[in-house]
Amino acid sequence: MNKWLPSLKTKTPQEGFELAIILAQKGVEYTQPNEQIRKKLRPKYSRDPDSLAFASQVIAINFQTVAAANNYWKDRVKF
Amino acid sequence: MNKWLPSLKTKTPQEGFELAIILAQKGVEYTQPNEQIRKKLRPKYSRDPDSLAFASQVIAINFQTVAAANNYWKDRVKF
Amino acid sequence: MNKWLPSLKTKTPQEGFELAIILAQKGVEYTQPNEQIRKKLRPKYSRDPDSLAFASQVIAINFQTVAAANNYWKDRVKF
Amino acid sequence: MNKWLPSLKTKTPQEGFELAIILAQKGVEYTQPNEQIRKKLRPKYSRDPDSLAFASQVIAINFQTVAAANNYWKDRVKF
Amino acid sequence: MNKWLPSLKTKTPQEGFELAIILAQKGVEYTQPNEQIRKKLRPKYSRDPDSLAFASQVIAINFQTVAAANNYWKDRVKF
Amino acid sequence: MNKWLPSLKTKTPQEGFELAIILAQKGVEYTQPNEQIRKKLRPKYSRDPDSLAFASQVIAINFQTVAAANNYWKDRVKF
Repeated sequence: MNKWLPSLKTKTPQEGFELAIILAQKGVEYTQPNEQIRKKLRPKYSRDPDSLAFASQVIAINFQTVAAANNYWKDRVKF
Repeated sequence: MNKWLPSLKTKTPQEGFELAIILAQKGVEYTQPNEQIRKKLRPKYSRDPDSLAFASQVIAINFQTVAAANNYWKDRVKF
Repeated sequence: MNKWLPSLKTKTPQEGFELAIILAQKGVEYTQPNEQIRKKLRPKYSRDPDSLAFASQVIAINFQTVAAANNYWKDRVKF
Repeated sequence: MNKWLPSLKTKTPQEGFELAIILAQKGVEYTQPNEQIRKKLRPKYSRDPDSLAFASQVIAINFQTVAAANNYWKDRVKF
Repeated sequence: MNKWLPSLKTKTPQEGFELAIILAQKGVEYTQPNEQIRKKLRPKYSRDPDSLAFASQVIAINFQTVAAANNYWKDRVKF
Repeated sequence: MNKWLPSLKTKTPQEGFELAIILAQKGVEYTQPNEQIRKKLRPKYSRDPDSLAFASQVIAINFQTVAAANNYWKDRVKF
């Protein structure tokens, strides 16, 4: 696969959250590399409340990793 | 998406918990950006005990991240 | 919502576990604020073994957070 | 509830694992305090492979907490 | 139960992964101590893709614990 | 089983993510060592959106471990 994850560092927490979303999607892509199959599954998936909650969970797990990698963006936050 | 997560820092643990709820919701929003579809799913979701438990789980995972980012609010707690 | 989480600190591990239970319940409450609906769901939920196991899981995740916030109550434990 | 969790410290990793099992059970007990109901659910639960796997998962999450509380029993292990 | 977990330390990451598998199995064994019942459940379990994925998840959670206990085998790895 | 995990160290985050995928697969392999059975399950599994999301979750959990083992690749990242 192409180079898609050069670093876990992001400038802001929000960019970190968005990186967590990419990680969650990549986990699906590696498991089902066929884009057409993935696209066919999407409409049903994205209208099922439990599937949406599950997607949010996988993002949350990845966000833990990204946030730790960025030391929770503590160095840039002003108190 | 608009800027919605400037920082993981919160003043109190409760605000941190409420930020964890926002993170859980945002995970859903990014996966299903259509607000109308999300609204339609909500009544069913919020009356299903397992869905509610699952929502609580995603909040719990995000709260781990927010709590770590705030060093568990140790610096402000008086023993 | 009223102030319900002034601190993650507890005197004992058991109080920490009980705080984790409150966190798990609050995750449900924020998602479904209507108390009557929640009460109606409870009987069914609390008699389903998988739902009970899931409740225990959400408590376990929250207990990780509370335990870390209390440095695992190491300072008070006598060896 | 009676005092059941005076400490997260255990002498050995195995005792720590057994404490994790107690924590998983307590999560169920607090959610369904009625012992008779819990006993009725048990036979079905303990013969369902997915329920057993789920029980093992909740134990694993609690074992993370207990292991961290004991600094992974590093101080007692001889290399 | 017999002594089965004298230490979380392993010589290699792979042995650590295999210890994580044992921990996952022990979580099941403690919940259902009857070996015959467990054996009867196994064929069905091990042919269900979701059950297999779940087994892998419980292993992953336990591997987090074992890896942390071994400081991720950093001391022995050559860069 | 052959030696398949000499180290948790990887050069880049992406290689770390790919190692997390291997860990997730190995968790399945150890549980169901028969390759033919696994292959038969795969087509169904990889077309079910919830199974794909679950695979992504197990990868995410393993990626937490691999990322921590590599200190989140902080030493190599340029800001």
